[in-house]
Amino acid sequence: VTAAGDVSAARLARIALGRIAEPGQVALLESVHAHGAEVVREALLHDPDFGPRLRVAEPERDLEEASRRGLRFVIPEDEEWPAPLDDLATADALNRRGGVPLGLWVRGPLPLSALAGSIAVVGSRSSTTYGEDLAREIAAAAAEAGRPVVSGAAYGIDHAAHRGALSAGGTTVAVLACGADRIYPQRSSALLAHLADQGAVISETPPGGAPMKMRFLSRNRIIAALASGTVVVEAALRSGALNTASWAERCHRALMGVPGPVTSASSAGVHQLVRSGAATLVTSGAEVLEQVGAAGEHLVDVPRGPRRVRDGLPPDQLQVLEAVPVGVGAAIGSIAAIAKTTTARAEQILDSLERQGLVRRADAGWRLAVSARS
Amino acid sequence: VTAAGDVSAARLARIALGRIAEPGQVALLESVHAHGAEVVREALLHDPDFGPRLRVAEPERDLEEASRRGLRFVIPEDEEWPAPLDDLATADALNRRGGVPLGLWVRGPLPLSALAGSIAVVGSRSSTTYGEDLAREIAAAAAEAGRPVVSGAAYGIDHAAHRGALSAGGTTVAVLACGADRIYPQRSSALLAHLADQGAVISETPPGGAPMKMRFLSRNRIIAALASGTVVVEAALRSGALNTASWAERCHRALMGVPGPVTSASSAGVHQLVRSGAATLVTSGAEVLEQVGAAGEHLVDVPRGPRRVRDGLPPDQLQVLEAVPVGVGAAIGSIAAIAKTTTARAEQILDSLERQGLVRRADAGWRLAVSARS
Repeated sequence: VTAAGDVSAARLARIALGRIAEPGQVALLESVHAHGAEVVREALLHDPDFGPRLRVAEPERDLEEASRRGLRFVIPEDEEWPAPLDDLATADALNRRGGVPLGLWVRGPLPLSALAGSIAVVGSRSSTTYGEDLAREIAAAAAEAGRPVVSGAAYGIDHAAHRGALSAGGTTVAVLACGADRIYPQRSSALLAHLADQGAVISETPPGGAPMKMRFLSRNRIIAALASGTVVVEAALRSGALNTASWAERCHRALMGVPGPVTSASSAGVHQLVRSGAATLVTSGAEVLEQVGAAGEHLVDVPRGPRRVRDGLPPDQLQVLEAVPVGVGAAIGSIAAIAKTTTARAEQILDSLERQGLVRRADAGWRLAVSARS
Repeated sequence: VTAAGDVSAARLARIALGRIAEPGQVALLESVHAHGAEVVREALLHDPDFGPRLRVAEPERDLEEASRRGLRFVIPEDEEWPAPLDDLATADALNRRGGVPLGLWVRGPLPLSALAGSIAVVGSRSSTTYGEDLAREIAAAAAEAGRPVVSGAAYGIDHAAHRGALSAGGTTVAVLACGADRIYPQRSSALLAHLADQGAVISETPPGGAPMKMRFLSRNRIIAALASGTVVVEAALRSGALNTASWAERCHRALMGVPGPVTSASSAGVHQLVRSGAATLVTSGAEVLEQVGAAGEHLVDVPRGPRRVRDGLPPDQLQVLEAVPVGVGAAIGSIAAIAKTTTARAEQILDSLERQGLVRRADAGWRLAVSARS
């Protein structure tokens, strides 16, 4: 048996097990991770629950048929296997789902190993223009930094994320709950065709498999585990994006949330994530990159607002300026006393400040000019 | 010398020192806190910097005149002194300002001791309708919970906070940077008159003192120290409200920030506070009360979104429901296999789910009804 033969046998065993197990069926996936797919397949052949379906599975035929339709089945033994997915072996189960997938069905030319350092941009289908704009901006920033984008294929935030990455010439992949050969939702057909042509459409569900609620929940763990960090752009209180967020936490990935108006139901789920401390608040693509970067990489300047004239003043001038009242004039003697300087020196400085447009003569003294207020 | 005499001598010494020291002049305030006002006054009588002005101070006259104008001077020796202000003795200086104030000039009937447990609601003058609505809501919630509101007297968030507290029949006080007898800004005259009548207008600056930039910075420490927690509703990147936030941190008070659209400059400063971990994100008055409450007080239910029909389903029905695809019909045999039940039982359950409006017949099988999607 050659090494290629080993990989081939493992691949067929995993495809066969995929015919009897639902995505994310944690007990089975744990066994496979611990003992290998071939051992588990052998052991289950005579299991009363799994045996009958396992005995009629035809993994060679499944693989051939999938291959004819442009799909490949990537398994942990393959070089292109995305190593971050192995973290799912130790992440706690959620909703009775979890585990390293048996493999990933892939449609598209992108090797999955290229997803290292990717950023997941997820959110509600019921998104607002505000959320879509931000998803686009963040995905574009990720793409410009050379980081692939990972999302689902739903309308709303998912779509906006893919569009943003593509507009910046970046790589973007969709992870589906149904088979990677299926077009769901129908409105995403153009996007899925484009991704299959340029990037990758990925699924743990075998080809032909229907989109089911529990498969979405299992799918979310793949999105979170593939990416170095997950950004939740908009999510209502029961949005599936919060399930993806939970997976990002379980996998110890950076989890980020974009705030919005507290009056927007589409941001309520995100606010809860930030409030509880699970997610870091981010307001831009640059801040997202900072979070997922290695120490010292992509550090964002803390935004400081526009520089003001007064910032450059020497200490003695600043001291006098600070002694000038905001709304009403003060006499020069009073200003000098507060600034702890002589009247003569105060006069000199006030003249200079007036030339800089920072103070104005008022009443019988001086007051701040509008430009010097903050 | 009677006890009353002691208090009276201390009060006069503090008023006299207030004539030579700027609000928040930390070195002098530290001396007074350590040695008492009378000792410091005595020591400074012959100081070349302070002596001349100190020798001409007339604290008895100041007090009499202030009293005629309805002002009193509350000092640490008084029963109504708000004890939380003493935390300023140990809080680190900021912008070379800090310290326990010499005293507070007060206009209005409210005893300052009534400010225990108060909530500071602060923010930009350049506020939006969104921010003002939230400031009002939060202040009203504080008032309804019996907590006084503390703020400045600027237009924008400060005004909205006072209005919210008053609309809920609560107590609210304004802390000014100018003398408590002055009307600044002019647009706030009606508000200040009302507060002086019903609550209190407070200032560390002696009566008649003009509003100066550095007095605003000193004033902010009083707002933060008086309150149990500070909520920043809207603040641009260089807003003075961020200075108040710094003081809340220095005094180890609860610091909270209300998020907004990341596209709103008025929320940028708040987002920075939350992002850095300095402030906790809050989205409602109830969440503010939870933060400032004692352990177990005012606990907010984690918002969960509307309850859905599927939440109440027994496990076997839920298992079948989860096996029904979202967008396209699946045959009953396939649904039964995934749900690990018999075709007969699956049929029975699907009929029941159909009556509950959760599934629909489609193609040659079943699919989810719109109401069952999430």
